[in-house]
Amino acid sequence: MQVVRSVIKKLKNKVKHYMITGENYIGTKRSAQGSKIFKTFDPVTNTENESEFYEASTEEIEKAVALAWKAFICYQDYSGERKSEFLNAIADEIEALGDELINTYCSESGLPQGRAMGERGRTMFQLRSFADLVKKGDWVDAHIDTAQPDRAPLAKPDIRKMMIPLGPVVVFGASNFPLAYSTAGGDTAAALAAGCPVIVKSHPMHAGTGELVASAIIKAAERTGMPEGVFSNLNSSGIEVGVQLVQHPKVKAVGFTGSIRGGRALYDLAAKREEPIPVFAEMGSVNPVVFLPEALKERGEALAKTYAGSVTLGTGQFCTNPGLLFGIKGATLDQFIKRLSEEIVMIEPGCMLHPNIIGAYNKNKGNALAQKGLKLVSEYEQTIGDNIARQAVTTVEGAVFLDNPALHQEVFGPFTMVVQCQDKEQLEAIILKLEGQLTGTLIADSNEANAFSGVVEALRNRVGRIIFNGVPTGVEVCPSMVHGGPYPASTDSRFSAVGITSINRWVRPFSYQDWPNELLPAALKNENPLGIIRFVNNQLTTDTL
Amino acid sequence: MQVVRSVIKKLKNKVKHYMITGENYIGTKRSAQGSKIFKTFDPVTNTENESEFYEASTEEIEKAVALAWKAFICYQDYSGERKSEFLNAIADEIEALGDELINTYCSESGLPQGRAMGERGRTMFQLRSFADLVKKGDWVDAHIDTAQPDRAPLAKPDIRKMMIPLGPVVVFGASNFPLAYSTAGGDTAAALAAGCPVIVKSHPMHAGTGELVASAIIKAAERTGMPEGVFSNLNSSGIEVGVQLVQHPKVKAVGFTGSIRGGRALYDLAAKREEPIPVFAEMGSVNPVVFLPEALKERGEALAKTYAGSVTLGTGQFCTNPGLLFGIKGATLDQFIKRLSEEIVMIEPGCMLHPNIIGAYNKNKGNALAQKGLKLVSEYEQTIGDNIARQAVTTVEGAVFLDNPALHQEVFGPFTMVVQCQDKEQLEAIILKLEGQLTGTLIADSNEANAFSGVVEALRNRVGRIIFNGVPTGVEVCPSMVHGGPYPASTDSRFSAVGITSINRWVRPFSYQDWPNELLPAALKNENPLGIIRFVNNQLTTDTL
Repeated sequence: MQVVRSVIKKLKNKVKHYMITGENYIGTKRSAQGSKIFKTFDPVTNTENESEFYEASTEEIEKAVALAWKAFICYQDYSGERKSEFLNAIADEIEALGDELINTYCSESGLPQGRAMGERGRTMFQLRSFADLVKKGDWVDAHIDTAQPDRAPLAKPDIRKMMIPLGPVVVFGASNFPLAYSTAGGDTAAALAAGCPVIVKSHPMHAGTGELVASAIIKAAERTGMPEGVFSNLNSSGIEVGVQLVQHPKVKAVGFTGSIRGGRALYDLAAKREEPIPVFAEMGSVNPVVFLPEALKERGEALAKTYAGSVTLGTGQFCTNPGLLFGIKGATLDQFIKRLSEEIVMIEPGCMLHPNIIGAYNKNKGNALAQKGLKLVSEYEQTIGDNIARQAVTTVEGAVFLDNPALHQEVFGPFTMVVQCQDKEQLEAIILKLEGQLTGTLIADSNEANAFSGVVEALRNRVGRIIFNGVPTGVEVCPSMVHGGPYPASTDSRFSAVGITSINRWVRPFSYQDWPNELLPAALKNENPLGIIRFVNNQLTTDTL
Repeated sequence: MQVVRSVIKKLKNKVKHYMITGENYIGTKRSAQGSKIFKTFDPVTNTENESEFYEASTEEIEKAVALAWKAFICYQDYSGERKSEFLNAIADEIEALGDELINTYCSESGLPQGRAMGERGRTMFQLRSFADLVKKGDWVDAHIDTAQPDRAPLAKPDIRKMMIPLGPVVVFGASNFPLAYSTAGGDTAAALAAGCPVIVKSHPMHAGTGELVASAIIKAAERTGMPEGVFSNLNSSGIEVGVQLVQHPKVKAVGFTGSIRGGRALYDLAAKREEPIPVFAEMGSVNPVVFLPEALKERGEALAKTYAGSVTLGTGQFCTNPGLLFGIKGATLDQFIKRLSEEIVMIEPGCMLHPNIIGAYNKNKGNALAQKGLKLVSEYEQTIGDNIARQAVTTVEGAVFLDNPALHQEVFGPFTMVVQCQDKEQLEAIILKLEGQLTGTLIADSNEANAFSGVVEALRNRVGRIIFNGVPTGVEVCPSMVHGGPYPASTDSRFSAVGITSINRWVRPFSYQDWPNELLPAALKNENPLGIIRFVNNQLTTDTL
């Protein structure tokens, strides 16, 4: 025990306390040339945090992009081994930030410590997953079709294909995931793994958390010998920095997590460029849940409890929050709504991320309740502090919902709407009319699902992930996960924001024809020096040629 | 011999001659409600062809899309086996069209019979490749991550992922490939394989060829029991039909091969939709070729002959036509230019696809030659018939080329420009400034390439495929092929228009969470009834669970 304590003490002494400076990272250099200054806000104490942040200037943005482009020229060819060291080092350095990161996170988000620590773990896991992926190397999807010089009427050339990185990627931090979908979150980890330098447009609500994480990335880059400019972190409280980045000719792709309005604006900017670039924006979703009658009859009480928890989890600030619940009208559904309403107000209300966020929550909730036919069933009514959200359950008739698109809009926060459908046909008609969603959930007895196959089919065509007898909240980080879906859940349903296959957003296939073996990249050489799995003449193999 | 002749006779009697009607196919129904009528043109005889084509009306378009959507609901779940039968049947029915298809193709394109037959073979090969792919079934990229109910702090759910189709796809036929990139070409074959119904906007220059191929698809669909609306073929001589299709909410993706102007217009329309959809447009490319000094010294004469052939192949109407040749200024390059110029005028000039195409060729060639510093070195000068293109070799100094973007534009046709670079550095600077390209070619001695690694690196970042000591013309259909590249070679460099992986343009990943085994699609069931290769807990296997 004595030994352990002394090790801990030594480690603590080694950890140099990082002071938040409010400066940008232009590569490894700190820089604060801009005249615009802003602060972050602690919603729990309802006061501004101390540090002042310097918004990146036009020149700083130019410098960051120029460095990123220069870094790209060599970083794109770094071995999987080296990129893996870099990614693991980032995870290590984030861990080494210790309590300061957790405290800053909490003071800038109002989220509890447990959540901060969980999200840090998830972020590190993501980084290490990508480190494993690129170390293993199979992800480049190597294909080799060997030559057939004697083929008639024309000789067949030797053609080999692998994935290569697109170029510098701009990542927009998300308000609701200061770690896992921000500075060193999934988008950044995937881009760095792919071989793309990253410029982060830090989220203004957690600029301090962002700077801390950026300092960890920079330390890791220096420690593992990465090229200057492989990573930059830019502060900004408005839209100008983001606009300039997305329009820059040397930026080749964009990752975003946030509102439909924000994501669509970036998508539109990118589409209007002389050279359009891909924008993967993961945006709004109300995550419909369909409760089938038998299941509700059997397990209504437990489901009400579970869903009260899911709706209020993280104060309803998850992209996968279940904002829309469907059932067939009748006594069973009435009973469920009653139980859900009772359960939800028993939960301690939580703080939202920022006064702007709770402002939007109250406004959007108000807008929804102003719609004809939407009834408030229950809302947390006891006295609450500043920035605390009153969770609410509402209900509406299927026919009313079907006809009013305003009711289909997301109310970001601990809010849900139970739609009482007349019958199976109306339920199906409503689902067909929904916008694209990240998730859809079916609550059913096994035999029941078959009777509602049309509903299930309709749901499948509207979502990226379908869940059986569970809750949509909780996005497992694993290769089978799809976090994305038809617009507006994402701007391109052909990709996922979570899991190792999310690397595909930042790479393109590239062919070498009749290229000399000695000049080929390792992944495509005859001798397969990386020992990766390749398609050789359409057969999967690790063999040499 | 007697037996063979009698079999042939019987077969001939069985083949029912198909009369071109000029009607659209709205699913299996022929329809000609539109009032706008147009004809195709034979550039060889310089006369209009007889058949009149009826441009699709707004109502016909609506009907085709509605049918496609209805077909999608069931077709998306058809087994690989059934889709494979359909694709093979299309190939069979195209073959059964026999000489009529070849004759119509030639009369609508001016291309020779040998080319028509070669392209038909390629088209059938593509269809059969996709048939094999979906029959095998591995392409769905199945991932299974099994549950860990005991994991702390949270149980891990069972998650399984596979590719599913996007929905109805609109395919725009290409002028320069009436078969391989049109009605039943690569885009259509890939979309049908994916499970997406297809609506073809037939190319007006070869509407008769399109109708014949459409009739083959419809026959195949009927013969193999495909749902009504799985395929429609719409005629149009202007842009209206295409615009309406791309803007239709039930259309979920677009494939296009053609000009930058056309492709970009469709991309812009799709990006402005309420729900933006992916457009894969394969567009312009000048396909730079870099001749390194040693190679040119050793093999200049042979290279001049080879490149005279490549520039004029198919009257220069290939997307991969080498329109831009680079060398280091000096006697060796002078000699090469001289030989190339002599060789190219010895080739019999060819007919272009249409008076509009040759009109554009002459105009663009004129525009290029009007640029300061571009010199005409040689041009075919003997008397030629209507619609025959005069091939030409031009040359320009590196510095002039670098400064004048007008010289970087494609001149579609048998035209090439030799850029005389001052040195390696200027060559690299020029390549860095090029727009995105389908291909880049390096002509070099093995040892030479290393000395020019900066040039090779620059080229790699500008193209989709790089060729060593070959010609860019000739696009092998195989899994390793990338036919695409950075904009404007394509609108999304993350995909290829050729090869079986081009199916990825029309599909999206989809996750099932805790879904009951009996309700899962075959590709994801525990027992792996399809026997496909899957990632199970991140290991490739064909095992059952």
